[in-house]
Amino acid sequence: MYNICMDKYFSEKVINRLTLYHCILRDYIYEGKEYISSKQIATLLRIDDSQVRKDINLLNYSGKSRVGYIVQDLKTSIERTLGFEKSKKAYIIGAGNLGMALAKYDNFTSYGLNIISLFDNDKSKIGTEINGKKILDINSLPDSVLGDGTEIAILTVPGMFAQKTANLIVKSNIKYIWNFTPTVLEVPETVQVWNENLMGNFLQFTYNI
Amino acid sequence: MYNICMDKYFSEKVINRLTLYHCILRDYIYEGKEYISSKQIATLLRIDDSQVRKDINLLNYSGKSRVGYIVQDLKTSIERTLGFEKSKKAYIIGAGNLGMALAKYDNFTSYGLNIISLFDNDKSKIGTEINGKKILDINSLPDSVLGDGTEIAILTVPGMFAQKTANLIVKSNIKYIWNFTPTVLEVPETVQVWNENLMGNFLQFTYNI
Repeated sequence: MYNICMDKYFSEKVINRLTLYHCILRDYIYEGKEYISSKQIATLLRIDDSQVRKDINLLNYSGKSRVGYIVQDLKTSIERTLGFEKSKKAYIIGAGNLGMALAKYDNFTSYGLNIISLFDNDKSKIGTEINGKKILDINSLPDSVLGDGTEIAILTVPGMFAQKTANLIVKSNIKYIWNFTPTVLEVPETVQVWNENLMGNFLQFTYNI
Repeated sequence: MYNICMDKYFSEKVINRLTLYHCILRDYIYEGKEYISSKQIATLLRIDDSQVRKDINLLNYSGKSRVGYIVQDLKTSIERTLGFEKSKKAYIIGAGNLGMALAKYDNFTSYGLNIISLFDNDKSKIGTEINGKKILDINSLPDSVLGDGTEIAILTVPGMFAQKTANLIVKSNIKYIWNFTPTVLEVPETVQVWNENLMGNFLQFTYNI
């Protein structure tokens, strides 16, 4: 699948690499470093430095000097290109350990993902807060969407409740589901699902061990 | 990257799709269904059914009947091909919400991922259990590896401790790190890192929203 931005096409692999470059740049800034070379990025990710230069050439960035790219400028350039500056509102559906972990993940905000609130059916959790975000009653989901127009649901309920919860999400008029459950969801054509297939990722990694 | 199995090559995309078929088959078995067609799988995943048939042709499976594939046999065939039957031992390093969520994720076991124990530096957690797995003192990591030969570390500590913890993992002689932190790790050539790049995945998904 390809994505359009600024009249350019970015493949999933390019987006994936650019976010990793962004992680490296953020750490460089934290360590007070001003410059970075394509070779340094390439070594950390064990890819070819010509690949790094090719990716960076896709950005609207022209700050390369003799000592390397300017860390801050390159970071900003990636953020603009990947649209981090365009904030997207999302709910976390399921306030178990995984939902809690994602709610605490402050990195989301810097990548333009704005977690509005969590939803659960556990009465002991409803009304409490996690990382400044309220846990609301799952039954109030349709009203919440009406109120703030959130379009993305991050689904983190146990697998056995996944389809039933997805049905409620669809009825609530949410258009995008980021599915962390191990269930393949059945939803209408108008709703898009992104399966965060952890086991698939793991197997790709460990296949040859 | 390509992986070798039974003299065949499987791309990351094929492995990813096969694990999603496996999720569907598991749910079909749970619902007591005996047969499934390539069309049914394709509709759920919104891909072409010729793609599904092509993927299944890569497996050592020959059970297609007029009414479709035999669910149980196809599931077993995917498990054999992807090596689910070959168990791999792993530790979870970091018993925060994400580490806890992964420790509770019973699906791992059916995919051949055997979580031996968790490690943390929080004295209030050390010695307790989560889903039958002990939380051990991070300082005992090198001895544990010596004792049971675990090769995989699933890194779920906060980003700011990621590199320091990775150094300890390397010193403990673990060869594979499944990195859930938003930090790109610096490790020796002999250690492989798989970055679970959640933000990259998210951006691929939401790019056009």
